[in-house]
Amino acid sequence: MSGTVKTLKPPYYAVIFTSQRTDGDNGYGNMAKKMVDLASKQSGFLEMESARDDQLGITVSYWESLETIKSWKENLAHKVAQEKGKSEWYKNYSVRICRVERDYSFEG
Amino acid sequence: MSGTVKTLKPPYYAVIFTSQRTDGDNGYGNMAKKMVDLASKQSGFLEMESARDDQLGITVSYWESLETIKSWKENLAHKVAQEKGKSEWYKNYSVRICRVERDYSFEG
Repeated sequence: MSGTVKTLKPPYYAVIFTSQRTDGDNGYGNMAKKMVDLASKQSGFLEMESARDDQLGITVSYWESLETIKSWKENLAHKVAQEKGKSEWYKNYSVRICRVERDYSFEG
Repeated sequence: MSGTVKTLKPPYYAVIFTSQRTDGDNGYGNMAKKMVDLASKQSGFLEMESARDDQLGITVSYWESLETIKSWKENLAHKVAQEKGKSEWYKNYSVRICRVERDYSFEG
């Protein structure tokens, strides 16, 4: 995971993944790390940001196109992780596919 | 702050606000609460989700239109908070204005 993203040029695409975890790790930490590594090697991957507190986790990944988001969703190892996510790791989650229209940043 | 959003109908709009805080509270907690209250009363506001850990904070707010996002950005009390954000609360932040094209969710 990295800090804030500053160098992208809209339009690009964002996947907002919001989740509430089940109790216990159940192999989640290990798999999450693997999925970040794997995602970052996919064609069209730009960046990923993540934060989790005791209420909620939000991970936003940024991509060049809707096609590259689709390819990542259908990646075989990712599909296995998605199934484990439903059966073990998440109480609930939402996924939103977005087109980033504009961005700006502040550096203090 | 609430849990995951489930009942919206795309297209709608998301503002992804990613930030790293300065040390200490400096009145931040109080103002953050006020801004959530105020945002939720704005025309076009749909929902807000937030997570922060020791590395990063991500807040995503959802809106009916780009116009309602603009109005909130220009809200006078919000402008005061934005200035304090730059001078006191944030080391850096990024704002991304997005159009949500598609969403889906899982409830375990």
